[in-house]
Amino acid sequence: MLHFLANISCSGMERLLKKCQIRNQLIRECMAECLGVYVLILFGCGSVAQVVTTEDKKGQYLSINLGFALGVTFGVFVSRGVSGAHLNPAVSLSLCVLGRHSWVKLPFYIFFQVLGAFLAAATVALQYYDAIQAYSGGDLTVTGPTATAGIFSTYPADYLSVWGGIVDQVIGTAALLLCVLALGDHRNSSIPHYLQPVLVGAAVLVIGISMGSNSGYALNPARDFGPRLFTYIAGWGADVFKAGSSWWWVPIVAPCVGALLGTLIYELMVEVHHPSEQSQSQASCPEDRSDKVGVELEGVEADREKPT
Amino acid sequence: MLHFLANISCSGMERLLKKCQIRNQLIRECMAECLGVYVLILFGCGSVAQVVTTEDKKGQYLSINLGFALGVTFGVFVSRGVSGAHLNPAVSLSLCVLGRHSWVKLPFYIFFQVLGAFLAAATVALQYYDAIQAYSGGDLTVTGPTATAGIFSTYPADYLSVWGGIVDQVIGTAALLLCVLALGDHRNSSIPHYLQPVLVGAAVLVIGISMGSNSGYALNPARDFGPRLFTYIAGWGADVFKAGSSWWWVPIVAPCVGALLGTLIYELMVEVHHPSEQSQSQASCPEDRSDKVGVELEGVEADREKPT
Amino acid sequence: MLHFLANISCSGMERLLKKCQIRNQLIRECMAECLGVYVLILFGCGSVAQVVTTEDKKGQYLSINLGFALGVTFGVFVSRGVSGAHLNPAVSLSLCVLGRHSWVKLPFYIFFQVLGAFLAAATVALQYYDAIQAYSGGDLTVTGPTATAGIFSTYPADYLSVWGGIVDQVIGTAALLLCVLALGDHRNSSIPHYLQPVLVGAAVLVIGISMGSNSGYALNPARDFGPRLFTYIAGWGADVFKAGSSWWWVPIVAPCVGALLGTLIYELMVEVHHPSEQSQSQASCPEDRSDKVGVELEGVEADREKPT
Amino acid sequence: MLHFLANISCSGMERLLKKCQIRNQLIRECMAECLGVYVLILFGCGSVAQVVTTEDKKGQYLSINLGFALGVTFGVFVSRGVSGAHLNPAVSLSLCVLGRHSWVKLPFYIFFQVLGAFLAAATVALQYYDAIQAYSGGDLTVTGPTATAGIFSTYPADYLSVWGGIVDQVIGTAALLLCVLALGDHRNSSIPHYLQPVLVGAAVLVIGISMGSNSGYALNPARDFGPRLFTYIAGWGADVFKAGSSWWWVPIVAPCVGALLGTLIYELMVEVHHPSEQSQSQASCPEDRSDKVGVELEGVEADREKPT
Repeated sequence: MLHFLANISCSGMERLLKKCQIRNQLIRECMAECLGVYVLILFGCGSVAQVVTTEDKKGQYLSINLGFALGVTFGVFVSRGVSGAHLNPAVSLSLCVLGRHSWVKLPFYIFFQVLGAFLAAATVALQYYDAIQAYSGGDLTVTGPTATAGIFSTYPADYLSVWGGIVDQVIGTAALLLCVLALGDHRNSSIPHYLQPVLVGAAVLVIGISMGSNSGYALNPARDFGPRLFTYIAGWGADVFKAGSSWWWVPIVAPCVGALLGTLIYELMVEVHHPSEQSQSQASCPEDRSDKVGVELEGVEADREKPT
Repeated sequence: MLHFLANISCSGMERLLKKCQIRNQLIRECMAECLGVYVLILFGCGSVAQVVTTEDKKGQYLSINLGFALGVTFGVFVSRGVSGAHLNPAVSLSLCVLGRHSWVKLPFYIFFQVLGAFLAAATVALQYYDAIQAYSGGDLTVTGPTATAGIFSTYPADYLSVWGGIVDQVIGTAALLLCVLALGDHRNSSIPHYLQPVLVGAAVLVIGISMGSNSGYALNPARDFGPRLFTYIAGWGADVFKAGSSWWWVPIVAPCVGALLGTLIYELMVEVHHPSEQSQSQASCPEDRSDKVGVELEGVEADREKPT
Repeated sequence: MLHFLANISCSGMERLLKKCQIRNQLIRECMAECLGVYVLILFGCGSVAQVVTTEDKKGQYLSINLGFALGVTFGVFVSRGVSGAHLNPAVSLSLCVLGRHSWVKLPFYIFFQVLGAFLAAATVALQYYDAIQAYSGGDLTVTGPTATAGIFSTYPADYLSVWGGIVDQVIGTAALLLCVLALGDHRNSSIPHYLQPVLVGAAVLVIGISMGSNSGYALNPARDFGPRLFTYIAGWGADVFKAGSSWWWVPIVAPCVGALLGTLIYELMVEVHHPSEQSQSQASCPEDRSDKVGVELEGVEADREKPT
Repeated sequence: MLHFLANISCSGMERLLKKCQIRNQLIRECMAECLGVYVLILFGCGSVAQVVTTEDKKGQYLSINLGFALGVTFGVFVSRGVSGAHLNPAVSLSLCVLGRHSWVKLPFYIFFQVLGAFLAAATVALQYYDAIQAYSGGDLTVTGPTATAGIFSTYPADYLSVWGGIVDQVIGTAALLLCVLALGDHRNSSIPHYLQPVLVGAAVLVIGISMGSNSGYALNPARDFGPRLFTYIAGWGADVFKAGSSWWWVPIVAPCVGALLGTLIYELMVEVHHPSEQSQSQASCPEDRSDKVGVELEGVEADREKPT
């Protein structure tokens, strides 16, 4: 009976879609990472575009914080069942260093994360084309009173030195990883998987609220470089790489350092000291590791690694 | 004993209400859709009315975003157990195309969605009658410094071209469907049913924050057309259809295109590639489809279709 | 072993407290209602006091909305296990009419709800004593540029007619009951009990955002009358009853009408039409009624009614 | 098979980290308290730094409220599985008085709570070094137009008397404990452990919204004294102890009084009157006490007390 109903609901459309099924695990993961970062940047940069082009009339700094926070939440919801929702090369790198993600996959993940951010920046530029033209008078600039490059990637505040910027990005990304690892550590606070995207979004929100003013809390090489590349191509020109004393490399390098630092702090202050209990006692390297890895981590890796 | 207590608590009032029970499934669904959209517009347009008539003193753009977001959340809570809480003709249409909702019911759903929006607009006008009179000086206008038609339906920003408006609505509605489908895809992120209304509200919030400034993120033909019809009848006149270069048809047509586009993107990037696992292996068209359909989808359709 | 540990942790303090145990169910319920409304008003009116006395520098209208919303959430958390967390005479009345609460208890509930609101207003006045003195120059007024009576109870906007105010309060309270009944209707959207206080708070938030500007969304006779009585006694004088064309009786009468209206709408549009299913089929008046009553309802009444 | 996979995922890094494992329970708890308060202050004071140094352009009072609220939430997530997440000497003291925490551990907890706050203040000063220099012109002052000491610890409003400040802190901390104890009282509202950090954060949010303007809602001796000590050493000088008529001791003493008062109120109004039911009937001092203690309480103490 149920089978019968199911067949009915199986429309022509559904059957058509089914023909497009891809079974290669890596391609699926790359598409999911790409779509996840796409959603993150679409909402994040979109909220900046709204605030900038309406001159704070239809939004404020807090709405930008909310835009990126909920962008992360929905980016994770869109991709985590498939790729584990890293959405950030610095996170992928940390996981590789910890031995929780495959080094071989790393370049693929990074490429598709940057690609997703690039495509999202293009979409935001398309959606806000009229608004950007009206606001900037058609002149796409990186600095000055009607600068619009800041919609897409981050630029440092005037007062910020390069070292200050590096410190800012290292601390910010370390704080992010600290929160994300705590949320995923099932021997500290075992949080249901469906709440983790929301709480990771909350972590991004509070970082934006408390660490956003120095240089725009990129915390993520893909989030910054993809849209920067888009602005370089789309008419803002080479200034996007020159502005802020060639700021562009800081949100690429510093988040990687910060991610590793944050990982180290959480591991050394909390996680490695958890007593190995009953079920964990036979192996010094716990087998239920995969349960623990949480949101940004490769949660379902073990299953995926198995031949299908 | 429990039975005894239950009888006691069964007051005369309760017995009276019981006599009004309607058993026809379609009527019940239509009433639920109507009430759901009513709640959505009551809170959504109410928050615009509050911001407009107090000149931003008792609210701001963010509170309008929150008003529509929580309006959606409670609209879904009010109706989803009965009708599946589409609350949006573009969503109903997408589900029909995907074969997850009956084409026969489509016109009924749309009519009652528009009716709910119309009635809610009338309620907002009633509740804010004194405020609108005081703010507008009794002159109900669509454009100008004390325009009040924007309380009820959407109008484009001055700079927006018609094509820009269409692109805006298509992207916005595609983003909405992308999020809603991800939330309902139990093989990606299986979210308890009681959290889905909250998360769909969060999706509407972030879309309002990141895509609201161009043309007011209608994303929903019923949300826009019902209140527009009300303003046409209630004294704002034919201008509501002429303003913005006859903008009125864009939030009817473009969301339908956007909903289909968003559905396609999510299906082709993520959903169709999920491996068919254990219980799903016997049928290429999974039988537990109905489990998956989630918030805006016809979750309990299968049960309802069964003879009672 | 566990028993032994428990005895150790049972300190002298704990044993002392245990001696104060009251076993009378009605007294316990009244204390819980009193404390629940106390928490609601402490946070709600406190947030108004903060916004008024800092002249919007440390808060804004949205923070008042959040103050009352979270006030309701924690008021419910504090009391619902004991009294069912009505926290509102209009809610208690509706439940009596529906036969879900005892008419005999009604006057006790109402008295302690008003008492809790009165005590909370006194606490806010104590905590903000210096601030109110500094802001008002020591002159406690109900109207005028440094009026402070509005910290405690509601007053209508200048433009609002009495009929407009009645309509406003009826619609607002009806919307509240509509949401609360939907959240508690387990055959529509069965929400875990621990989320209901949060979602009822969200309902109060959205009502404040969309229906707050006309007359301050009292929606609750105790919330308005208790603090008004306090201001009458504490130095604001008889003006608190005269202001706004003797506004004071509207937030007492209209919410009761609105609560009944909202109840009727939800019952007639959704709840009475739920099909009586399997376990419910033997009795036309469902026995698991008590499961359904949810947040503001007498959830655990049945147990409490039983002799202990 | 799973064992095999686990070994593979056990990288060199992971094995290296494992060597640093500390088994001493007290050291682990102290590290967790230290890190928890660190996170709380990093986000909390960071959000103040952002608002102050950008002169409200990238934040507002509400974002400070959110910063401390989410700071508490993530501080609890980071530490509660290990130490029970007191994060506040006043909370630790209350638990000792109630007999739910060991008096012997109290000085250790307090020291590491203060240390965490001190280190976080140093981190905020490092991250905002350029911003503070630019804002203050290099002159670190406690009062005056470009005062920056308020980024780190609390100072009273001009109008506030010392007694007013004491009353403010006593009421605020009592309200905090009232909420925290209600959230942890499993016979009132049994909330899943993973939601408690979020709801404790919400309690801090609403207290900041409704009780923040008089003296900055310290509510926590460690939160205030640690950063004050840092500012004393780092260049703000002895003024940090002299300002506000030697305000510094109030947020140390008053929260302890308030915490005890709030505990008493909740115990006497609600908790002690819960009927001892089935499983609790054999012992007047309930054995499942440890289940109940909730967020800020020593939840897993019993297990930890046991020899490993």
